[in-house]
Amino acid sequence: MSISKLLNPNSIAVIGASSNKNKLGWQILNNLVSGGYKGKVYPVNLKEKTIKGIKAYKNIKDITNKVDLAVIVIPAQAALNVLEECGDKGIKDVIVISAGFSEEKDKGEQREQTLIKIANRYKMNVLGPNCLGLINNISGLNVTFANYKRQELTKDNNIACISQSGALGSAMLDWSVTKNLGLSYFISLGNKAVLDENDFLEYLQNDKKTNAVALYLEEIVRGHLFMEKVSKMSLSKPVIVLKSGVTDSGKKASISHTGSLAGSKQATETGLARSGAIEADSLKDFFDLIRFFNQKNVSRVGDIFIVSNAGGPLVAAVDELEKNDLELGEYTPKTKRVLQEKIKGITSNIDNPIDIIGDADADRYETVLQEVLKDKNVGSILVILTPQTATQPIETAKKILKLKQNYKNKLILTSFIGGEKLQDAKNILHHGSVLDFDYPTEALYCLGKSKQYTNKIKKLKVYSGQKDKTKADKSGQMDYIESFSLLERFSIPSIETKIIKSIKDIKNISFPTVFKAVGPEIVHKTDKNSLVLDIENKKQAERAFDSLSSFLEISDNYCVAQPMIKQGVEMIVGFKRDVSFGPILLVGAGGIYTEVLKDIQTEVDDINLSRAMVSIKQLKIFPLLTGARGGIGYDVKGLAKTLVNLSKLAKLHPDISEVDINPLFVTKEGVVAVDPRIIY
Amino acid sequence: MSISKLLNPNSIAVIGASSNKNKLGWQILNNLVSGGYKGKVYPVNLKEKTIKGIKAYKNIKDITNKVDLAVIVIPAQAALNVLEECGDKGIKDVIVISAGFSEEKDKGEQREQTLIKIANRYKMNVLGPNCLGLINNISGLNVTFANYKRQELTKDNNIACISQSGALGSAMLDWSVTKNLGLSYFISLGNKAVLDENDFLEYLQNDKKTNAVALYLEEIVRGHLFMEKVSKMSLSKPVIVLKSGVTDSGKKASISHTGSLAGSKQATETGLARSGAIEADSLKDFFDLIRFFNQKNVSRVGDIFIVSNAGGPLVAAVDELEKNDLELGEYTPKTKRVLQEKIKGITSNIDNPIDIIGDADADRYETVLQEVLKDKNVGSILVILTPQTATQPIETAKKILKLKQNYKNKLILTSFIGGEKLQDAKNILHHGSVLDFDYPTEALYCLGKSKQYTNKIKKLKVYSGQKDKTKADKSGQMDYIESFSLLERFSIPSIETKIIKSIKDIKNISFPTVFKAVGPEIVHKTDKNSLVLDIENKKQAERAFDSLSSFLEISDNYCVAQPMIKQGVEMIVGFKRDVSFGPILLVGAGGIYTEVLKDIQTEVDDINLSRAMVSIKQLKIFPLLTGARGGIGYDVKGLAKTLVNLSKLAKLHPDISEVDINPLFVTKEGVVAVDPRIIY
Repeated sequence: MSISKLLNPNSIAVIGASSNKNKLGWQILNNLVSGGYKGKVYPVNLKEKTIKGIKAYKNIKDITNKVDLAVIVIPAQAALNVLEECGDKGIKDVIVISAGFSEEKDKGEQREQTLIKIANRYKMNVLGPNCLGLINNISGLNVTFANYKRQELTKDNNIACISQSGALGSAMLDWSVTKNLGLSYFISLGNKAVLDENDFLEYLQNDKKTNAVALYLEEIVRGHLFMEKVSKMSLSKPVIVLKSGVTDSGKKASISHTGSLAGSKQATETGLARSGAIEADSLKDFFDLIRFFNQKNVSRVGDIFIVSNAGGPLVAAVDELEKNDLELGEYTPKTKRVLQEKIKGITSNIDNPIDIIGDADADRYETVLQEVLKDKNVGSILVILTPQTATQPIETAKKILKLKQNYKNKLILTSFIGGEKLQDAKNILHHGSVLDFDYPTEALYCLGKSKQYTNKIKKLKVYSGQKDKTKADKSGQMDYIESFSLLERFSIPSIETKIIKSIKDIKNISFPTVFKAVGPEIVHKTDKNSLVLDIENKKQAERAFDSLSSFLEISDNYCVAQPMIKQGVEMIVGFKRDVSFGPILLVGAGGIYTEVLKDIQTEVDDINLSRAMVSIKQLKIFPLLTGARGGIGYDVKGLAKTLVNLSKLAKLHPDISEVDINPLFVTKEGVVAVDPRIIY
Repeated sequence: MSISKLLNPNSIAVIGASSNKNKLGWQILNNLVSGGYKGKVYPVNLKEKTIKGIKAYKNIKDITNKVDLAVIVIPAQAALNVLEECGDKGIKDVIVISAGFSEEKDKGEQREQTLIKIANRYKMNVLGPNCLGLINNISGLNVTFANYKRQELTKDNNIACISQSGALGSAMLDWSVTKNLGLSYFISLGNKAVLDENDFLEYLQNDKKTNAVALYLEEIVRGHLFMEKVSKMSLSKPVIVLKSGVTDSGKKASISHTGSLAGSKQATETGLARSGAIEADSLKDFFDLIRFFNQKNVSRVGDIFIVSNAGGPLVAAVDELEKNDLELGEYTPKTKRVLQEKIKGITSNIDNPIDIIGDADADRYETVLQEVLKDKNVGSILVILTPQTATQPIETAKKILKLKQNYKNKLILTSFIGGEKLQDAKNILHHGSVLDFDYPTEALYCLGKSKQYTNKIKKLKVYSGQKDKTKADKSGQMDYIESFSLLERFSIPSIETKIIKSIKDIKNISFPTVFKAVGPEIVHKTDKNSLVLDIENKKQAERAFDSLSSFLEISDNYCVAQPMIKQGVEMIVGFKRDVSFGPILLVGAGGIYTEVLKDIQTEVDDINLSRAMVSIKQLKIFPLLTGARGGIGYDVKGLAKTLVNLSKLAKLHPDISEVDINPLFVTKEGVVAVDPRIIY
């Protein structure tokens, strides 16, 4: 369903519009009218004849003209009837502001189910319920009850903000005015009963006025779709995401390592990483990143250049570069030479960063920045200022604005550090759309995220994994021997495994060997003494078989013998299916190191060989696989292939919810699965 | 030398005072006079007769009265002569504002050496050179050239700020006014030629008006003293430190693992951790922590309680708890019951955190907070607000101030998130000394640091390690066999090691054995094939000896045989001497895992058994030592003892700069050093 009319309606009915200024219905109508909306507005109110001088209707049905968008702001139960009436009238786009739905238990949840049914029956786009509404600053449409005055769009730098929380939305709107943020759209998702973030992403992808999108989300229900839409958008526009409400309810229920290591929290993180989204690490970081990516030139971030009138903050900033994976850039020899001449006698050491010394006035800032910005090596520059005796904050801010005009393709960030003395200068910067941060810390954080993003999209492809709803309920564990057969069918080599039913079977095996009791209840073998290693002869084998007898008394349990492997590295590989993001593949340090080191990497199901290699290389223990300190190089490629093969298995067996192979030995000759656990 | 007169002089001479408003000498005199200084002021200027209506002197010698403090603000070369004259006159406290010393190479460095000599000769306290000066807000003394108006002390909450950077100091002063920070002292250290941070710590320890100290440092030269003073102060007053300029020059020169893992950066971090200081993680965090620890009640931080009118920010805040090692508290049943009654119908779920819903007015905030603050379980509370339709930011801020008066022993933090609509309310909070942060992120960061600090000082003891300057230059490597003997003398058990001079010697050894070529140039044995493991018989031994022949041709190299150890965990232990902080002890994952995992912990030289155990328990691989997943418990106590023994060795052998034992095997029976490397 296209949401074009939802964002660009020619006519709007406000059901619950009111003359009472304390009511949301008044606020919405007032925002609509005073926001400069050019289309037709139809207030609907049972009692009032006119509202704000506009003719009011008793019922939506009384409006004879076509209505593109209905906004419902009446109590929840009545809202459902009105929604039905909207359907009858053929209205395809509706915003339900009213609360009292799934955010309240029992009755509220039932109401939401009814709402969804009505929406589906009439094929209606419903935004909300329990939302603040939406703003289209391009056309001048404000269908919210927020106390927000329409802001002009900036020429280039406009971001669309989508929030699952209305209250956070209010804060964002107020903040966006103060920071002079170019905001193209604001959308409050509310309970996401019908429309969710994915429905807006495609529209915004094609919107020319929007050059970035910010999303505050508490849950991502359609993870597959999210990865597809966001990966597609990220290739042209940055998508900033703050995902909160990160719980990991799946963790406790899990019985395998893969299960606990690839829980729902990990699934969301893996999915977000795959999507190409820029993840904010905190609420504060989210707001900073919105301001930063609102700028069009942010992808020019390369090595960092710093000019400062203060040594201390400069040293601190250089320290913080590393934390953000940034590096100082190098000026061309020409720039160095010119600077040396221009600020001779001020500082002996003209290099990046440049300390232009405490007595720098606005002219000195200008002189130096002019040369710096000319340098072809310079993509982005951070200007630091603290208020000292000779400092001219306002004049310096003005000079920077002027320079920004002349060097539009360069990114200029400032950090004017202090208090009262800088407030006017900081406002000048904000209103000139220069990104000023209170501390270099925040500027460097954003620059780091930008560099990460730029590097990431070089290799980013649109997500192409499984889309069908997959099963995540567990119903049982596959038999041990059968598990090996399944892995073999997906080209994952298995260790030779013989069932030892009685002592008689011992004569057929070769030494050294390993005995294991296997069965549905035996999870971590080394924990429970259900594993005997390094059996060198028949006598030891008999004793080992005896020691496992307590396990073997339980039906479904039996004993197997496997050759003892003495070389290679023990790894864990597997996947766990997430309801939203699908199969989450995992690779990491195996055996006793799995829990101790928690050295794991995860990926989603459209993994290929090269991405599998990237994951493996990010493991801390990767050097052990290549043979650190004189060791031997093992079959890393075989390990990568195993991950790809597991993703194929996940695709062809939607009934299997979890595979855990721990250990999978990676040796010189290849990989071999030694202990599999498969849950269907 | 006492610095009491430096901070509380009865008379001050300003050498370089001037009537020219563009000169620092004017600014300093003006600050002194308008700041309300009550003592005598003597301007010194070659030409002027009176300055600002005060009689001026040609030379310091012309002042016949006693002068407690001289402030020198004339060019560097002349400053040295004047310093000498001050010495002659018997002035014991001097502030050298002038730049042109060690911050400039060659001549500047020479001048600083001369300055130090003069200061030592006359036993003078010299602050600076190249500094901003100092402020004593208790007595109303401003001897800086900063454009800063004296602020009143707050009743309880005053912090002293010490900065190695004058420019950062300017920013702090301006900021402190805006945030209404209670500032007792401000000290700009400059080049720290004579006085450094340590000289001020003892004074501030005993200053009753100062309840916390903040330090911005770029280097800590007297690390031993720093650990002693800060650990002592931390027991009663929080010390916040931003240590920047973190380089690790020692890293490349190092030839052992301990050497590279316990470099100068690591030494500083270890020393700071030992000192009990609260370390800021960035420049921004430093400013936030100063505001936070400026409050007297911050040590009441326990579990966290949150009240919010906004669901989204509340969910985000709960997410960020974990990152800061914080937990949500539990209300008493009574509070829950009362709240249930008082805000019936507003929210169904009265628990921590409480969402008082978007339409909360000031009264609802008051009603809820009143009950919450009464609860004995509540030590600190975070109040979140976003500007929504019914929100009353100013009234809410006022109610919070009133509540603060009634609950003085509780810590109330606020986070009013938004822009213009909240600015007045935020100012009310600042001026009422309620800690308001732009985002919960920052409040939670500070609360986390406070909890960490509170836990830390429970076990903190005053540093009592070695104080004498220790040698860090390397001159050679101790012989392999001799190294074992030294370790044995400090009760560190060594593996049985026999020298194999020729094939004849093989007949005296028992199998399985290990052969090693040892010598000064052979560092990482597994890297260079200088190690043959698992030799099971004479024939294999002969072959092994042969394979080492290329090493054995080099003089000083020889071959040793050691028994093959098949159980236990390989660890690394050792120490490296740091010029400032002394011996830095290290323990971590050994063998091939040392470089791969970099799982290490470090401690300073006054380590004891219990602190050694704490370090060991913080290792990721600690579960392997205790026998994770069915393994065997190894001699962890023996490992801890080894660390303590190494600290004794370091103390009694100041000529030894580095000890590296890798691996030290930790087995069921005890620990055993297998491969030592000792640098003297």
